[in-house]
Amino acid sequence: MINLHEIQDRVAGYIREAGVRILHVSKTMVHEKTGHYNFVTETDVAIQEYLRTELTQLIPDCRFFAEEQENDTLTDAYTWVVDPIDGTMNFILHRHASCISIALLKNRVPVLGMVYQPYWDELYTAIRGEGAYLNGVPIHVSERPFDKALTAIGTAPYYAELADATAYCFHQFLTQGGDIRRVGSAAIDCCDVASGRADIFCELRLSPWDFAAGALLITEAGGSFMMPYEPEIDFGKPACILATNPACREDALRVVLEAQKLIKQ
Amino acid sequence: MINLHEIQDRVAGYIREAGVRILHVSKTMVHEKTGHYNFVTETDVAIQEYLRTELTQLIPDCRFFAEEQENDTLTDAYTWVVDPIDGTMNFILHRHASCISIALLKNRVPVLGMVYQPYWDELYTAIRGEGAYLNGVPIHVSERPFDKALTAIGTAPYYAELADATAYCFHQFLTQGGDIRRVGSAAIDCCDVASGRADIFCELRLSPWDFAAGALLITEAGGSFMMPYEPEIDFGKPACILATNPACREDALRVVLEAQKLIKQ
Repeated sequence: MINLHEIQDRVAGYIREAGVRILHVSKTMVHEKTGHYNFVTETDVAIQEYLRTELTQLIPDCRFFAEEQENDTLTDAYTWVVDPIDGTMNFILHRHASCISIALLKNRVPVLGMVYQPYWDELYTAIRGEGAYLNGVPIHVSERPFDKALTAIGTAPYYAELADATAYCFHQFLTQGGDIRRVGSAAIDCCDVASGRADIFCELRLSPWDFAAGALLITEAGGSFMMPYEPEIDFGKPACILATNPACREDALRVVLEAQKLIKQ
Repeated sequence: MINLHEIQDRVAGYIREAGVRILHVSKTMVHEKTGHYNFVTETDVAIQEYLRTELTQLIPDCRFFAEEQENDTLTDAYTWVVDPIDGTMNFILHRHASCISIALLKNRVPVLGMVYQPYWDELYTAIRGEGAYLNGVPIHVSERPFDKALTAIGTAPYYAELADATAYCFHQFLTQGGDIRRVGSAAIDCCDVASGRADIFCELRLSPWDFAAGALLITEAGGSFMMPYEPEIDFGKPACILATNPACREDALRVVLEAQKLIKQ
């Protein structure tokens, strides 16, 4: 039996080291004029390989899923689900809104979730059943009602068939709720809901490495993490994600279900 | 005749001191549970009064326009135009996306523009005709074309009559351009266009203290600053703002002019 607290302590060191690499590259890139995309891909892959090497040594026979590789089917075994840089376009543009997301799954659900935002040195952590924390201080979702809710929206620019439905969500959350944010990092959006910096987060298609850690952070912080278009929560494939505080749950779900009718086939 | 370089050096000290106050309040507020709105209003007003006291001593007979007071009609005299905290909701929610915006106008146009983002210690500065700078390093708008453009959109939640037009812009910039950001601070959005972290910024109604400094930063960085719904640029009243790099100018203007038809009277 593994000790999740010991593992969390070890991973905290690795994820902070990965954050230092992001900060260092960001600083050198400020004066670069060409080759950003290749350079960043190298950074993504380098951080992923560093984390793969370290994380897979922590647990015997564990598996490793990540953004920058081909992945197998999810099983009941211990599985790391990693995004080495969530918010890659922000990273390229020096927008200071990127993070590293690491989840450990067992029996196909997250038991450990960690997100590190290096620009503000913010480390979000959760172990299943033990609450959510920001730099060691407990965090909770907000209590703001829907008519004042701040909604973080993911825009999924790669998926043209989702644009009308995404715009519908934007309009509905803006007119029925409070205001909108679009950060450009799904893992940061999840952390924002978990810590009460936002009240709702929705994105119509995301991959498991974008949300696996965030999902545990949100539920451990008292929020709802849903996949409105799926029969049940499944961390093994892409899905539409909706995360909310309890007060906004019903209204936000209604909007996202209505939006589904606008998705083009 | 005043020396704008000397004034800029003095204002740099004041705006950084205001930033320290924002950081200090943010840290104490993390554990507050009630009274955020009043507390923040006090911070807004306290910073504004600090800046009013210091800035009006720098130039004889200058005037002072700011968000948290009643303002007269703009004249040709030297006029400070100040937003003590741009991104107030972000400040309340600890989203680390707020700034101080200070412009000096003469003959109704900005001759000095400064924006300070205290969370990353980023000071943007411009003197008319002398280029734009981030922490002393020259900055320039991007060259990205419209079909890859990152557009920052302001959502103006206070103005229900603008919601349909804003959603139209969101949809058009998402489907015709690259991706969308919504930071929640117009002055930061202007700085992002000036420094190439975004390619387009539009918001359908803003006040002069939101954009006066940003306008000078954008034009000095090689970008276009427009008021598409006005006969001419006027820093004395609220307006629809469009800022772009040269490559995106025509396409972005077309979208914003089309959106005007959807504004409810």
